[in-house]
Amino acid sequence: MVNPKIAFKNKKVLITGGLGFIGSNLAIRLVKLGADVTLVDSLIPEYGGNLFNIDPVKDDVTINISDVRDPFSIAYLVKEKDFLFNLAGQTSHLDSMHHPDLDLQINASAQLSILEACRQYNPDIKIVFASTRQLYGKPKYLPVDEAHPLSPVDVNGINKLAGEQYHLLYSRVYGLHVCALRLTNTIGPRMRIKDARQTFVGVWVRRVLDGEPFEVWGGEQLRDFTYVSDCVDALLYSVASPQANGKIYNLGGVDVVSLSDLAKLIVKLNPDSEYLVKEFPVERKRIDIGDYYSSYQLIEEELGWKPKVNLHEAMLETFIFFKQSKKMYYD
Amino acid sequence: MVNPKIAFKNKKVLITGGLGFIGSNLAIRLVKLGADVTLVDSLIPEYGGNLFNIDPVKDDVTINISDVRDPFSIAYLVKEKDFLFNLAGQTSHLDSMHHPDLDLQINASAQLSILEACRQYNPDIKIVFASTRQLYGKPKYLPVDEAHPLSPVDVNGINKLAGEQYHLLYSRVYGLHVCALRLTNTIGPRMRIKDARQTFVGVWVRRVLDGEPFEVWGGEQLRDFTYVSDCVDALLYSVASPQANGKIYNLGGVDVVSLSDLAKLIVKLNPDSEYLVKEFPVERKRIDIGDYYSSYQLIEEELGWKPKVNLHEAMLETFIFFKQSKKMYYD
Repeated sequence: MVNPKIAFKNKKVLITGGLGFIGSNLAIRLVKLGADVTLVDSLIPEYGGNLFNIDPVKDDVTINISDVRDPFSIAYLVKEKDFLFNLAGQTSHLDSMHHPDLDLQINASAQLSILEACRQYNPDIKIVFASTRQLYGKPKYLPVDEAHPLSPVDVNGINKLAGEQYHLLYSRVYGLHVCALRLTNTIGPRMRIKDARQTFVGVWVRRVLDGEPFEVWGGEQLRDFTYVSDCVDALLYSVASPQANGKIYNLGGVDVVSLSDLAKLIVKLNPDSEYLVKEFPVERKRIDIGDYYSSYQLIEEELGWKPKVNLHEAMLETFIFFKQSKKMYYD
Repeated sequence: MVNPKIAFKNKKVLITGGLGFIGSNLAIRLVKLGADVTLVDSLIPEYGGNLFNIDPVKDDVTINISDVRDPFSIAYLVKEKDFLFNLAGQTSHLDSMHHPDLDLQINASAQLSILEACRQYNPDIKIVFASTRQLYGKPKYLPVDEAHPLSPVDVNGINKLAGEQYHLLYSRVYGLHVCALRLTNTIGPRMRIKDARQTFVGVWVRRVLDGEPFEVWGGEQLRDFTYVSDCVDALLYSVASPQANGKIYNLGGVDVVSLSDLAKLIVKLNPDSEYLVKEFPVERKRIDIGDYYSSYQLIEEELGWKPKVNLHEAMLETFIFFKQSKKMYYD
């Protein structure tokens, strides 16, 4: 098994989407592990990048503001790096339906140029790609494992599938070291809470902080949640494990709960808060996937990863963080 | 079952890739059926478009030379059409590896803008999309049916998968009438024979016509072949059948043969010809899929389509056509 205390010490690391939710939590961890960290982020306002996210390590990392759609910038940045954590992406399902070509440019086309840059300028770099459960679409069985058919229900899922497949292809055909992790709902400090573009939990948190009721659509849908520190562990293990090369792994969570149960947990942690149960808006309903939770058995068996932080602890830490710093996340 | 003699009479039809191999054979048929046919084609020299392909009907169709990547042209062309046969695509597996972003622009991005144009300007248009067996990758079982896992082995397959998925998505979410046909090797008059960009059979035919030996790589791989008139039948049935809406169907062939058997058949039909058996070139080998043949049971059950023309007859007709007109297909 990978020992992160050794694997990343003095290593040169590039994180795309490095000012985003997961990227910034990863950057903070990598600095602690002694890595030489470069972050690339476009700071597009609708996405997850936020300079405050890396406040604890801002003097210990290199920040490069550019877009993964800029192949020249990326070609420069991948050179001489040991590891690439490829996390940049457009995450909003609804935005992908309204601006499908923009989603394609970021989630598919830019991925190709990142891989081309690695192939041409740094074929020994080790890459992990942040893929998504969205590729599976509406589950045909639960828990969803990696053999589940792929049938994305929105433009975002289709483009993320292409992006993931390019990664695996460049591993098979050109011998790049690549692993893809299919993330489920990731939550925790530094997530986008301004709106629901990253996760619906973000906008719930915001409403609680503002003393307003949050809206639960439906409520019976089952979901699993990975706390961000567990997600960071998985990224570290998979980028550095030789046996992860060319593989796809699901992540998952300690708990599987209904949205109503999550809402109740939030009210328990914030006794002044309240929520409203509403019908699904039509536009959301037609791209909703019903119940979903992942099997993470494969990554547990092969890399020894499993989620450690339960939902209660995850939400508690999330509220502690945002109560201290909410003004850095929205006006 | 659809009666093409009625279904297309006086109907306004648009064919993307209309000067290409399948598009031109379809156009000739549709003119006979009394349709009002518009062809759009980019005439990119490396692709299949060729003005001679529509020589028999050149005074009976409208030709619009433009690229499916041009959204303004497409937006104009889809208006007031009853049917869209969406056949334009980059077909070369090898070119897709050398120019992955170009393949993405044509096979994925342009497909999105075609669908957006239909959604905005003509939501009642009936669409059939030419997809490909390449989406399945290396078969896990034979014959390959529509439930087979999707695991494309080259950039072309990944982008065609995205293109197909957009079509199905626009059917589910926006109610467009869409059917996708997963074509296997289609052969016949008007295919590209200048090189192997469309099918390896093309370059075999050219070598025979030139009195040179053709090269068989490996030889044991099994393949199925659809004669182009059968493919045209399937396109007509699927675009006009209400029950095809939102569906994906495989096409297939009468015969399943090894490449060596096909080579022997060609020599039998052309007694002066000869072939050489060679090792697979490395660049091709790593994106080859081994044995492949399709199950076409689903479209047979649901739309009453099955292939009628066997391989002997298909190759015979192909050679008759190209012996008469080879100078129109290469210098």
